[in-house]
Amino acid sequence: MSAASQARRVNPSLQIEVFEKTEWVSYSACGIPYLVAGDVGDVDQLIARTPAEFRERHIDVRLRHEVVAIDAENRKVEVRDHGRGRTITVPYDELLVATGARPREIELEVDDPSIIHGVQTLDDGIRLLEHARRIGCKDVVVVGAGYIGLEIAEAFVKWRGKVTVVTGSAEVMPSLDPDMGRRVRDAMIGHGIEVVCGQRVTAVEGGRVHAGRHEFPADLVVIGAGVQPNSEMAAAAGIPTGINGAIDVDHQLRTAVPGVWAAGDCATSFHRVTRQPTHVALGTVANKQGRIAGENIGGGYATFPGVLGTAITRLCELEVARTGLSMAEAGSFEAVEAVVETSTGAGYMPESRDMVVKVVAERRTGRLLGAQITGGDGAAKRIDAFATALWNDMTVHEMAMMDLSYAPPFSPVWDAVLIGARKAAARVDARG
Amino acid sequence: MSAASQARRVNPSLQIEVFEKTEWVSYSACGIPYLVAGDVGDVDQLIARTPAEFRERHIDVRLRHEVVAIDAENRKVEVRDHGRGRTITVPYDELLVATGARPREIELEVDDPSIIHGVQTLDDGIRLLEHARRIGCKDVVVVGAGYIGLEIAEAFVKWRGKVTVVTGSAEVMPSLDPDMGRRVRDAMIGHGIEVVCGQRVTAVEGGRVHAGRHEFPADLVVIGAGVQPNSEMAAAAGIPTGINGAIDVDHQLRTAVPGVWAAGDCATSFHRVTRQPTHVALGTVANKQGRIAGENIGGGYATFPGVLGTAITRLCELEVARTGLSMAEAGSFEAVEAVVETSTGAGYMPESRDMVVKVVAERRTGRLLGAQITGGDGAAKRIDAFATALWNDMTVHEMAMMDLSYAPPFSPVWDAVLIGARKAAARVDARG
Repeated sequence: MSAASQARRVNPSLQIEVFEKTEWVSYSACGIPYLVAGDVGDVDQLIARTPAEFRERHIDVRLRHEVVAIDAENRKVEVRDHGRGRTITVPYDELLVATGARPREIELEVDDPSIIHGVQTLDDGIRLLEHARRIGCKDVVVVGAGYIGLEIAEAFVKWRGKVTVVTGSAEVMPSLDPDMGRRVRDAMIGHGIEVVCGQRVTAVEGGRVHAGRHEFPADLVVIGAGVQPNSEMAAAAGIPTGINGAIDVDHQLRTAVPGVWAAGDCATSFHRVTRQPTHVALGTVANKQGRIAGENIGGGYATFPGVLGTAITRLCELEVARTGLSMAEAGSFEAVEAVVETSTGAGYMPESRDMVVKVVAERRTGRLLGAQITGGDGAAKRIDAFATALWNDMTVHEMAMMDLSYAPPFSPVWDAVLIGARKAAARVDARG
Repeated sequence: MSAASQARRVNPSLQIEVFEKTEWVSYSACGIPYLVAGDVGDVDQLIARTPAEFRERHIDVRLRHEVVAIDAENRKVEVRDHGRGRTITVPYDELLVATGARPREIELEVDDPSIIHGVQTLDDGIRLLEHARRIGCKDVVVVGAGYIGLEIAEAFVKWRGKVTVVTGSAEVMPSLDPDMGRRVRDAMIGHGIEVVCGQRVTAVEGGRVHAGRHEFPADLVVIGAGVQPNSEMAAAAGIPTGINGAIDVDHQLRTAVPGVWAAGDCATSFHRVTRQPTHVALGTVANKQGRIAGENIGGGYATFPGVLGTAITRLCELEVARTGLSMAEAGSFEAVEAVVETSTGAGYMPESRDMVVKVVAERRTGRLLGAQITGGDGAAKRIDAFATALWNDMTVHEMAMMDLSYAPPFSPVWDAVLIGARKAAARVDARG
């Protein structure tokens, strides 16, 4: 929908049709956990723009219309109209594939699929909420420990049931290094969530989740083990895919097939730190890519400058954020790290909260590679200073003297960002 | 004290003497308003390190020792020892002038100086607090509307007296543009503070503050009209001063006189946006300059990379921040501005608060020149992303696609920083 809107802004005379499989467009999938938690009272609040609003801009939105095949050679798509139970063929000049992603499939023995939920689309969220309301949620098990899974786990704490997170990875939130993930786990345990790491779930049978020798009673199971791009239809049409199975795109978000573009969770991105293609399924990236694709399809010119892997969340009163590469992701970069335990405000301010910042830098060059933050209110948005520094290929040495803001309610006189950079610089210098 | 500590780290054999006029070293002057407000219960909490801690590191701290003259030619200082009532002469190899700043002198007719207070040193703060406790503060008048003055005004709201701010400038907080300052004023008025702009205070007589045709009863008057560097003694010793009367220094913080260095509120800085000397009297800058000077004096090598004029505060529940140049400061840069009214979190999150971001960019080039923020909890620390972008001379066009963090508790899917940059870029493009 971002692409459609931007194409319309650029070119008022374009004919724009949008086919959407579900009954919803332009919503905040990231808001689903807050809907489940009851923080957001009504599903309509998650809708940014209604189909009617798009139609007013002459963007023809067709709900419950599922594109089932692309004929790139003849520039046509085959569309299943679920409302009327018919299939139509629609020609195009330019086609944007924005099919998103779905929960990663995991091999599971399941006797009752009705208790298992993904949380990718608004339909998923609504179905999950209806199920929860119907059964009351005595025992909720979340399989996987990524952002959305953990957010859903916290949401169900408010339902007063027992909530268990089971993950095959060694620590929760594997996009953080384990020392930082451990802090997230501690916050969750403090909130009454049972967390079981290093156990792969193999079956959901007889009202129980089975993981190795462990069993957990479950009247509701949420799969939060990451996503995979919906790229099969594009691949079947001969459109090349790459990392993680996502659709390969150039800087303007063209695929390798003439007239076909891709954007959002189904498409690859360029990682500015590794300088390699990557696949990031996040709303921020999808919105930006949509805008870029729409600009180009409308006849303008824009390029997508890439991603850093920036992400943020709040879990069980702990703020958590990361950008760039973790130590685990540093790969062929030789990296040093510095971990700083400090506070969100001046030590003497009663509202100051603990905060931990981890900085990852390249050996010898001192180039910033990434950062991770956990802490109380006000901690995590500091990740944007790191992200901006990463964007500009700064060294930790230069970062250490940046003119960042200070006042007692907001930071110690040396902000955590500066202390982290300084300590990382010292590690770089010590190691040579 | 930052310089002394860093010199000691670099060079364990250096002999280091510190002469301090008052009875306090190494304290947070920025914490004084919170001490007055009662948020900080005890003055000792504002002390970062005691003289004893410094002496353990073989830094010889002499309290109530006031340097009264510098003999740069013979590398000696004359020191008044207030404790023993004597004057001594002390030789040096390297001298750091770190005399700080004092409240800007304003021409005032005064019949009772005892009710008038500055809030620059901890002594000032303690005297103010004692006075307030003694008299109870029925009527407090703050003269001037800079950061510290307004923070003190808010602090006295907690004393349940009538608080009035009187300033000669057209709007409060003149380091913001007036449209943003107006939002600060509204927050203060909402807190019960009377704010009188555009009225220069001329006299404090008969228990009343006189400003033009206005009169305000006052049993306590705080001067918060900015500061001026304590540079007269250095100037008298032939050490050149520059902008605002501050001591001119090079990148290593050397003055033009051999063996003499300067750092902190008494010294000039280099402004990274204007590329001109500037004078910024802030704790962050002073700490950094102290560290750099100490490194060099100790025999290491470091340069001070300059300032952006970043500042932040929280006033009457409104967070306020700025960096770089305001429209008013743009000077010979032709500037365009964009103002964005958005929210701290996703619109549907109950904890989201209003936030306003103003972005200033150079015409044609699109170079970011500055930013200003007001808003609820979580708004203001975003200034650090702008500061980091300014540090790197980014254009608003490039900023608009940065990979900044997003989750519903923290921002809309397009963070205010990105929207502000995008709107500013559109203004740049429209204006040509």
